[in-house]
Amino acid sequence: MMKKPVNIAITGAAGQISYALLFRVAAGDLLGADQPVILHLLEVPEAMHALKGVVMELEDAAFPLLADIEVTDDAETAFRDADIVFLVGAKPRSAGMERRDLLQDNAHIFSRQGQALNAVARHDVRVLVIGNPANTNALIVQRNAPSLPPESFSAMSRLDHNRAVSQLAAHFDCGVADISHMTVWGNHSSTQFPDIHQLRIAGQPLVQPLDTVWYLRTFIPAVQQRGGEVLAARGKSSAASAAHAALCHMRDWVLGTPEHDWVSMSVISDGSYGVTPGLVFSFPVRCRQGRFEIVRGIELNDFSLDRIRLSEQELLAERDMVAHLLPH
Amino acid sequence: MMKKPVNIAITGAAGQISYALLFRVAAGDLLGADQPVILHLLEVPEAMHALKGVVMELEDAAFPLLADIEVTDDAETAFRDADIVFLVGAKPRSAGMERRDLLQDNAHIFSRQGQALNAVARHDVRVLVIGNPANTNALIVQRNAPSLPPESFSAMSRLDHNRAVSQLAAHFDCGVADISHMTVWGNHSSTQFPDIHQLRIAGQPLVQPLDTVWYLRTFIPAVQQRGGEVLAARGKSSAASAAHAALCHMRDWVLGTPEHDWVSMSVISDGSYGVTPGLVFSFPVRCRQGRFEIVRGIELNDFSLDRIRLSEQELLAERDMVAHLLPH
Repeated sequence: MMKKPVNIAITGAAGQISYALLFRVAAGDLLGADQPVILHLLEVPEAMHALKGVVMELEDAAFPLLADIEVTDDAETAFRDADIVFLVGAKPRSAGMERRDLLQDNAHIFSRQGQALNAVARHDVRVLVIGNPANTNALIVQRNAPSLPPESFSAMSRLDHNRAVSQLAAHFDCGVADISHMTVWGNHSSTQFPDIHQLRIAGQPLVQPLDTVWYLRTFIPAVQQRGGEVLAARGKSSAASAAHAALCHMRDWVLGTPEHDWVSMSVISDGSYGVTPGLVFSFPVRCRQGRFEIVRGIELNDFSLDRIRLSEQELLAERDMVAHLLPH
Repeated sequence: MMKKPVNIAITGAAGQISYALLFRVAAGDLLGADQPVILHLLEVPEAMHALKGVVMELEDAAFPLLADIEVTDDAETAFRDADIVFLVGAKPRSAGMERRDLLQDNAHIFSRQGQALNAVARHDVRVLVIGNPANTNALIVQRNAPSLPPESFSAMSRLDHNRAVSQLAAHFDCGVADISHMTVWGNHSSTQFPDIHQLRIAGQPLVQPLDTVWYLRTFIPAVQQRGGEVLAARGKSSAASAAHAALCHMRDWVLGTPEHDWVSMSVISDGSYGVTPGLVFSFPVRCRQGRFEIVRGIELNDFSLDRIRLSEQELLAERDMVAHLLPH
C-alpha cells in the first residue's frame, strides 16, 4: 500500500538551485524511498519555457515516487495544499546593486508569497526560505501570513552549518560524521557567527584549549566568505550544495535531528539568548515529531554574545528597511 | 564497521551532467547509504578552475559517505584503482559540425582513455560511456583496453529506456513502476529502436492489439527525438535526467536488475539476435551478482528485425570511420 503523496511547492523552479533540488526530491532523498511526492513548481512567466524543459527531464527520469508535477506562475495555485514549501526564487544581486535595493525588490516578492500562503496553505505547512536575503525574506513571509503558526517558517543557515562542519573535519582530521554540536548563530550574511564552543568530536568535548588565532582569523572568515569563494571558482553561485543543505534542513525538520546533536536553523526568535522576539534568527535547534525547539541553556561567553548582538543588529536594520511590508 | 570505500572515476567532471551526478553519488544514491565512496575527478586543464569550485561545493555538503576527492588532468591517475568509471566528458557537437567530425574528435579522446584504463584499471572495473557518440566511443575504449574483459564496458541507453517508460506510463495511464519488459535496441542515436512488443503493464502482457499508428508515428519518434525537444526548451542538453539514467544503469549493473524485468544497456554484442559480434549495441539485459547477461529467446518480427538491422548498419559505419583507432 503506497503512502499518500506529499505536496511539495518550489519557487524559482527553473533556476540552478531548484535544478539540483528537484531531482533529489523526486528520487526520495528528502522523505525516503517509500514516500511519493507531488511537485508544485512556481516560476515567473518569462521562465516558463525553460521550466517546461526541466519538467520534461523530470518525466524522462521515470521516478517511481513522482506522482505528479504541477506548473504555474500563480503563487496561490502553487501553494494550495502544500505540505512543504521551498522558497528558492529571489531576484539576484546585480553588479553595483546595494544590499538595500536588493532587500526592497525581494521584499515585494516575498510579501506577496506570504499573502498567498496565508490564503491557501495547510495549517501544518513547513516553509523554508532559501532566496536571499533569506532571514528577512522569511520574516516578511511570516508577517504576511498571520493565520499560520509562526513556527511554520524558517530560513536556511544549514549551508553555513554544513560548510563549518566540513572545515572542522578537515582541521581536526576526522570524518564529518564525527563533528557535532556546531552552531551557526544569526543572519545568513557575513555577520553570521559560526560557534564551536560546544563542539564535540566523536562525542567528546575538545580537550585542548581552542586555538583562538585559527578560530578568529581562519575558521570564522572561511565560513563567512565561502559563498564568494565558490562563486569566484565556479563562475556561478553555489547551487548543488545549497540544494543539499535545503534537503538536510527540511528532512531534519520533518523526520527529526540525530540523537545527541542539534542543527542550525533560522527560526522565529522567542527571545532565547536575548535575541529580539520575532526576528528570524539562526539558533541551535532540535527537531522531534515534526517540530523544532530552540536548544536552551547554552552558556555564552562575552565574545559569543558580542557576535550574536552584531548579527541581531544587522537583522533589526534589515527589518526597519522593510517595515512598510510587515503588517502587525 | 564502515565498508571499504569504492573508487569512482568521473571524466568531464566540471560539466553539467557531472554536476548533477556527483552530488547524488556522494549522497549514496548510487550504492546505498552505507557505502563510502572516493571520487576521482578528471578534467582538461582549462576546466580545472571551475572544477575546483565544484569540489568546494562537494566539501560544503559535508557528505558522510564522501571519504575523499581526488582531482587530476591525467587519465591514468584518475583511473588507477577505480572500481567504477563514468566516461562523461566528450567534445560537444558545435554548430555546422558533421557527425563524422564529432566522431573523429572524440575517437582520439576515448582511445587515449582506453589505453589509460588498460594500463591502470582494476580487472573488475565497470565502465559506462555517457559522452556521445556513446556506443562507438565505448567500442574505441574497449578495443584500446585489451587486457580487460570486454564485459567491463558499456554505453548508456538507459536515458532512452527511461524516456520510453515515462511515455508509456502516460499513454497507458499507469505508474512508471507498472511498466516492464521495455527494450531499446541499437545505437544511442536517431536509429535507436524502442521496442514494446514484450511490454507488460502491472506484470500482464498487453491484451489489446498494438495501436501501430500511435506506435510508429507518435511513440517511436517521441523517444528518438526527446533529446532535441529538451534542448529546445531548456536551451541546454539534458543533464540531470542523463545523470539519473547513469545512476540507474550503474546501480542495476552492480546491485542487480529487478526480478521479473530487464533493462536496456549497450554492451559488447556476442552475436545475439544476429548483431555483429564486438559492436557495442543496446540489448535487453538482466544483471545478477555484478554481471550482465543479454536476455535470450525473444521472438522478433520482421519489423523489429529491420529496425535492429538499420541501427546495426549505422554502428558498422561508425566503426569503419574510426577503424584506425581500433587495435586488434
